[in-house]
Amino acid sequence: MSDKLWGGRFTTKAAEWVDEFGASITVDQQMAAEDLQGSLAHVKMLAKQGIISENDGQKIAAGLIDLQAQLAAGKLEFTVANEDIHLNLEAMLTANIGPVAGKLHTARSRNDQVATDFHLWLKHRLPHVLEAVSELQLTIVNLADEHAGTIMAGYTHMQHAQPITYGHYLLAYFEMLQRDYERFEFNQKHTDILPLGAAALAGTTFPIDREFVAAELGFEQIYHNSLDAVADRDFALEFLSNAAILMMHLSRMAEELILWSTYEFNYIELSDAFSTGSSIMPQKKNADFAELIRGKTGRTYGALMALLTTMKSLPLAYNKDMQEDKEQVFAVTDTILASLKVFTGMLQGLTVHKERMRASTERDFSNATELADYLANKGVPFREAHAIVGELVLTGLQTNTTLQDMPLAQLQQASPQIEVDVYEDLQADVAVNRRTSLGGTAVVNVKNEVARAKHILEQR
Amino acid sequence: MSDKLWGGRFTTKAAEWVDEFGASITVDQQMAAEDLQGSLAHVKMLAKQGIISENDGQKIAAGLIDLQAQLAAGKLEFTVANEDIHLNLEAMLTANIGPVAGKLHTARSRNDQVATDFHLWLKHRLPHVLEAVSELQLTIVNLADEHAGTIMAGYTHMQHAQPITYGHYLLAYFEMLQRDYERFEFNQKHTDILPLGAAALAGTTFPIDREFVAAELGFEQIYHNSLDAVADRDFALEFLSNAAILMMHLSRMAEELILWSTYEFNYIELSDAFSTGSSIMPQKKNADFAELIRGKTGRTYGALMALLTTMKSLPLAYNKDMQEDKEQVFAVTDTILASLKVFTGMLQGLTVHKERMRASTERDFSNATELADYLANKGVPFREAHAIVGELVLTGLQTNTTLQDMPLAQLQQASPQIEVDVYEDLQADVAVNRRTSLGGTAVVNVKNEVARAKHILEQR
Amino acid sequence: MSDKLWGGRFTTKAAEWVDEFGASITVDQQMAAEDLQGSLAHVKMLAKQGIISENDGQKIAAGLIDLQAQLAAGKLEFTVANEDIHLNLEAMLTANIGPVAGKLHTARSRNDQVATDFHLWLKHRLPHVLEAVSELQLTIVNLADEHAGTIMAGYTHMQHAQPITYGHYLLAYFEMLQRDYERFEFNQKHTDILPLGAAALAGTTFPIDREFVAAELGFEQIYHNSLDAVADRDFALEFLSNAAILMMHLSRMAEELILWSTYEFNYIELSDAFSTGSSIMPQKKNADFAELIRGKTGRTYGALMALLTTMKSLPLAYNKDMQEDKEQVFAVTDTILASLKVFTGMLQGLTVHKERMRASTERDFSNATELADYLANKGVPFREAHAIVGELVLTGLQTNTTLQDMPLAQLQQASPQIEVDVYEDLQADVAVNRRTSLGGTAVVNVKNEVARAKHILEQR
Amino acid sequence: MSDKLWGGRFTTKAAEWVDEFGASITVDQQMAAEDLQGSLAHVKMLAKQGIISENDGQKIAAGLIDLQAQLAAGKLEFTVANEDIHLNLEAMLTANIGPVAGKLHTARSRNDQVATDFHLWLKHRLPHVLEAVSELQLTIVNLADEHAGTIMAGYTHMQHAQPITYGHYLLAYFEMLQRDYERFEFNQKHTDILPLGAAALAGTTFPIDREFVAAELGFEQIYHNSLDAVADRDFALEFLSNAAILMMHLSRMAEELILWSTYEFNYIELSDAFSTGSSIMPQKKNADFAELIRGKTGRTYGALMALLTTMKSLPLAYNKDMQEDKEQVFAVTDTILASLKVFTGMLQGLTVHKERMRASTERDFSNATELADYLANKGVPFREAHAIVGELVLTGLQTNTTLQDMPLAQLQQASPQIEVDVYEDLQADVAVNRRTSLGGTAVVNVKNEVARAKHILEQR
Repeated sequence: MSDKLWGGRFTTKAAEWVDEFGASITVDQQMAAEDLQGSLAHVKMLAKQGIISENDGQKIAAGLIDLQAQLAAGKLEFTVANEDIHLNLEAMLTANIGPVAGKLHTARSRNDQVATDFHLWLKHRLPHVLEAVSELQLTIVNLADEHAGTIMAGYTHMQHAQPITYGHYLLAYFEMLQRDYERFEFNQKHTDILPLGAAALAGTTFPIDREFVAAELGFEQIYHNSLDAVADRDFALEFLSNAAILMMHLSRMAEELILWSTYEFNYIELSDAFSTGSSIMPQKKNADFAELIRGKTGRTYGALMALLTTMKSLPLAYNKDMQEDKEQVFAVTDTILASLKVFTGMLQGLTVHKERMRASTERDFSNATELADYLANKGVPFREAHAIVGELVLTGLQTNTTLQDMPLAQLQQASPQIEVDVYEDLQADVAVNRRTSLGGTAVVNVKNEVARAKHILEQR
Repeated sequence: MSDKLWGGRFTTKAAEWVDEFGASITVDQQMAAEDLQGSLAHVKMLAKQGIISENDGQKIAAGLIDLQAQLAAGKLEFTVANEDIHLNLEAMLTANIGPVAGKLHTARSRNDQVATDFHLWLKHRLPHVLEAVSELQLTIVNLADEHAGTIMAGYTHMQHAQPITYGHYLLAYFEMLQRDYERFEFNQKHTDILPLGAAALAGTTFPIDREFVAAELGFEQIYHNSLDAVADRDFALEFLSNAAILMMHLSRMAEELILWSTYEFNYIELSDAFSTGSSIMPQKKNADFAELIRGKTGRTYGALMALLTTMKSLPLAYNKDMQEDKEQVFAVTDTILASLKVFTGMLQGLTVHKERMRASTERDFSNATELADYLANKGVPFREAHAIVGELVLTGLQTNTTLQDMPLAQLQQASPQIEVDVYEDLQADVAVNRRTSLGGTAVVNVKNEVARAKHILEQR
Repeated sequence: MSDKLWGGRFTTKAAEWVDEFGASITVDQQMAAEDLQGSLAHVKMLAKQGIISENDGQKIAAGLIDLQAQLAAGKLEFTVANEDIHLNLEAMLTANIGPVAGKLHTARSRNDQVATDFHLWLKHRLPHVLEAVSELQLTIVNLADEHAGTIMAGYTHMQHAQPITYGHYLLAYFEMLQRDYERFEFNQKHTDILPLGAAALAGTTFPIDREFVAAELGFEQIYHNSLDAVADRDFALEFLSNAAILMMHLSRMAEELILWSTYEFNYIELSDAFSTGSSIMPQKKNADFAELIRGKTGRTYGALMALLTTMKSLPLAYNKDMQEDKEQVFAVTDTILASLKVFTGMLQGLTVHKERMRASTERDFSNATELADYLANKGVPFREAHAIVGELVLTGLQTNTTLQDMPLAQLQQASPQIEVDVYEDLQADVAVNRRTSLGGTAVVNVKNEVARAKHILEQR
Repeated sequence: MSDKLWGGRFTTKAAEWVDEFGASITVDQQMAAEDLQGSLAHVKMLAKQGIISENDGQKIAAGLIDLQAQLAAGKLEFTVANEDIHLNLEAMLTANIGPVAGKLHTARSRNDQVATDFHLWLKHRLPHVLEAVSELQLTIVNLADEHAGTIMAGYTHMQHAQPITYGHYLLAYFEMLQRDYERFEFNQKHTDILPLGAAALAGTTFPIDREFVAAELGFEQIYHNSLDAVADRDFALEFLSNAAILMMHLSRMAEELILWSTYEFNYIELSDAFSTGSSIMPQKKNADFAELIRGKTGRTYGALMALLTTMKSLPLAYNKDMQEDKEQVFAVTDTILASLKVFTGMLQGLTVHKERMRASTERDFSNATELADYLANKGVPFREAHAIVGELVLTGLQTNTTLQDMPLAQLQQASPQIEVDVYEDLQADVAVNRRTSLGGTAVVNVKNEVARAKHILEQR
């Protein structure tokens, strides 16, 4: 007979390397605290319901509390021989309090136990993720406040498009992170559900009280179908999907930090604390941390694909394939928490070269739209105005002359509607500050949006 | 000079095959209705705000309404020469009403226009997705109602685990689809936001009224940052992620339909209308539609990966890369709507072999847990009870005897606590109906959950 | 009874929308030529082996040849009612030559037929892919030849690292494409295998001659296991994986074309034929085609993920899920062929700003490594040399002085080993041309590598 | 000044948690042996070329050899403070032999060093992968040999299709693994290339001898372009893609092992050593290892997507993003080596229920094709034959009669061509053994293919 806790019907033992392949303890020991917390709630309920005696209940609870203390003190040592976190802790409990420990597993199964641990684990981490998103948002808003009036070229297709302010640019990332925040908030809904009580797949014949356990563990809801309770990993997939979108946002901002740190752009400089050097080129100062965050987008996408693939076509209810869920979620949690924290630090230590930013709008044609709009305001159909300005730009490029440097006569030759007041419109400041429509880049708008953003953050 | 509408500064033309590569009209013509709707709201606003004259506004509006009629009648023909849906429709409008059409593009850009079309498109489809999910849920609930008392083997690891009812099994899918429904509902939040007015990236100098346009188009919210408005594709990624999880659920149920249709299981039979035959093997009746849905999970995952990849590291604001967004979303919308409809049809025409299902519990050991629970109730620690039953099962397998067929003496030899009332507990019906804890498989529970599910559906 | 060709045992018909869901004709009609070619080889073999009469064989062959002519003339019209390309063509054949057409399907199944069509289809396209890769390689080599001596800053982490030549940079892409070429060549090995003769899954009882069919169709190898023949899609997965890596390479080069076209870098200018403008900003000239290629990387990755997902866990042999294979492969083939062609055109029309490139090395510290190497050559341990130069760079940045502009006294203060010959080493040309080790950027190396690359291409 | 080895130009230090985020030592310490091996070859070359003195070269070499010994003895302790494996080992070397250690990094950079380590690492592991594939192939071939004549139902769409032998089925997996083998062999081509000598990105000014280093390290080829040498990760992507396809194959076979272990199929029984039990259900014997392998397909797909994503759009040459490459490759190597080994063990301990397999063909209609072929041989067009048999099957299903149990009169009523010899054809053994065409399931074929397979394996 096998010496496994489930080994009653087995006649031969597995080799050690086979056990290692099947074991999850190297990963799921991260849920040790949740496993003990769940067991404690379970045993209290068993005793309260008279499923085990009050006395047995107290012995087991005392044993679990002792294990909690040992875990907190870093004294627990787990072994592959006991497969997973559940059997490891049960073995320790048995060693401590004797065979009465065997009554703890009444009316539950590892299937609902691991689901409960995993839900609890993520339920405990989501607030940290929300907080880390908020902190990055706050850092962005403060920087936007400081740079509400910092003029720079706005880009589309990485080409100078129209002048904007750096503050306005920053607030675009506030908005993205706001949606990330809302997604992780929504993620709580499907995480905050108690599986315990589903037992292996069908519920249990014991008169359990799931509401009591939910209250003990702080769960908002309880799974209404036992098969679903043990077979559902939607909450993990939602989390990985949310993380993938978050990292996509960070990859965009990281790309710009890297780009803007180049010799050619030179809009910003990262602090030494968030840069590294080269082992061979003494002059190098690399935006390594921004690059690493951009690179870690890959593993986050990969984790989402991994779990989606694993869950595909699995018949109900629990299958061992699902053991693969936790490693991805744990790793992604680490990745996004660290990436958010590093990003916050990078922005806090950022040096902004305001003059370089402003200079970017002074020798280019990013004011061409202003001239087209000027003509449209004079009644020229926009399409015609667009064509007129397009040809002026072509001339300008060929003669190395900006629109604001062209003499009035030249402009009027292109279109007689142009008058001397056009030069006012061609200034970057004016272009920016006339964009006062909702969502536009005018300084007054940016100030208003900063206030609105701060209000949102304060209300959390 | 190029003959493109944006060609003012260009001196040479592209070859036709190059144009074809860059053009999006083959895909984005699916948004023709939304593009016209958006233009109509925009021109009304321009006239209302005095940005163009009342007269010009009416001419353009009339031209757009005429195009709407032609579109509805299937008379519009699009051309790659005009690149995309926006320029195609603008060219048609110009052909119909002359150069005044050129005033329509005042105070907007294709960047905010395409974002508006895409938001509108998805905003119009999400209700259909929600409805299709609801219909499948209703079909499942009705089937669960019918089979609230149909006993079958419940599985974990594809092994007989404990007896459940088929109704209980079905309701697990109701729950999964309920979460899908909630995810698509949440998806509306980030879809129902108006980008128009962001113009190219920075807002516009014209005194536009975005609230008016939002009201005209039925948008709940307005983007507060113009860069974000044109650079955001979160709503599409959320949709693709939700679709991936939905298809994962359908792939699980499809897997079981296929499995249960085998010669070996023979629990169900799909209707001829949802099966196909073989070109060589005359006896074949294949669950082709379930297989196809399972297979289409692949393309849904792929679409999510595709857009996540495309968006990675894109600097603000719009980049042409983002043109790749729509084809994936359009295709996935078709895929999930059709898959949901086919699934609904498959279940409606399903023949359930109730006797085969019940028989599955009569010669197996899926009542072993009952015996362990029986012992635990007599005070045997569960772990010990588990070991005792494990050895009885081993003996049973070796002698081809089920637990219920073992004489009492044999059972008592294994554990003296066993008495004659044990045979009651070993019956599948009893095992099922004693699982009355919340979420358990007892018939009374299934009936209650069916009622609860119907109530949820009725309130939509 | 169903009116399907396989409908003998079916009693009811499917609704039209159900048929549409199941049908593959909209996709697999692209294999019409291959299907006819395969059928022709098959029927010749049937007649040669006496499985059907010579007379029947000739009638069927004539009918197939007639269909080939009609297909070439664009006269064939396919219908969803006939499901797939095989049944569509068989129905047409029957309409043309009568019931004898029914003998064509002797000793084969749609399972081996579709696999044969798909293998043939890809076997016919791989040479086009190889050719398109070669053409891009040739364009790159010619450009590298022209710019073997064009000095520019080489980058790591997007920071100026060391001076290189543009020709050297270009040859890095030649090498990447060379590996792509080798991968697609290897892809032929597993594509060039004949499945026909496997029949449904088990082979056939008819005395077929697979070697004859293979010779007729030009296949190098024959599947040795009938189950594998109909269940294998490795060749398609290899193709999608190769395409994903190819597009990754193109995305890297595209990124640089976009970056180098910015106002800030201004190293290159794309031709008008491979750029587009803006509907609102008249000055814009966007690298739309490079962006689109970069964006299409997403769909290629997605296609690979899609087919990997679809194939996961499929039991042998054929399952309908596999119908999803072709759409991905067809679309990716179009994508990579067009992307390669567009890329070739973009590079052929490229204007290179050689002075801007050279200027990038004149006011930076990309010669810092030269100074460190200079010191190392004088016996200073490299680590110490690196630290000395690092501090000089810091001083230079603070005083806005390049290394070559620092007076000798200042350099000697940092390290007494420095002598006046150091200024020679600090020149970009010298730095470049001293890198003559294999693979280094020296002009003479680039010339040699261009010759080697041309030799490789000529031998194809 | 920073205390980093590259810290010359840096003025402030990073916080510890920032260092941790950037450090790779927790992962890349797995390449310690390769890093030392590479350094040893490099220093030998430096001394041979006179770049450093013979004496310095010997001191450094001795120091490295000492570190190799300490590594082998498990005595090296790595620290996050030293970032990566290269700086960790260099710091240890410096501690042991003093500042002369600083000369080791002459004429190389971490960029070419890490690429060299990574190439070497995979070059050393690919033979193990090939061996593990071979061992699984051998196990399969031996099992196929044993079961060359074991009749079972062959499946398509998971429906009984035609009788095959279990040996034939097994050989399909031999073929899949053969292609896997060939892919990993091809993978060696792009792995077995030496990057060292590329230095940071441009080659070096020192008179290095790359051929010597290649010979020392056993590399077949040398990168011909320095930028490519440090920027290329194709070999890793090929490996991940090959691993994904391999795991897809294993997932298919695992699915069948799980399926065939069900109560309903009961074709096979896994050994106790490769099964596990349940913590609640004493009767359970789960195919946990097969499930886990099927589940691990997810992480393998995810790893491929992760690295593809990371590499997308990276400008040349090295970027920190690429640090993410190794963790995925290391983890996947472990996954596939263990999965192959476990699979081999599972098959070696497999109990095959031959009678159950054979029985599966005795009460079904998997001989329907035989009847259709019988008719086709009598001159009935196959399509007509197919329809006739389809209707007979329908009758059979309705009356619960197999084809072989129908009286001759009944068969003749369906088709007068049927004669008494038909009953011979309807036997499963006959059906199997008449499929002697190349690739068919006849026992003689299986025997021949087993011999061919053994020959292939012997030649390795």
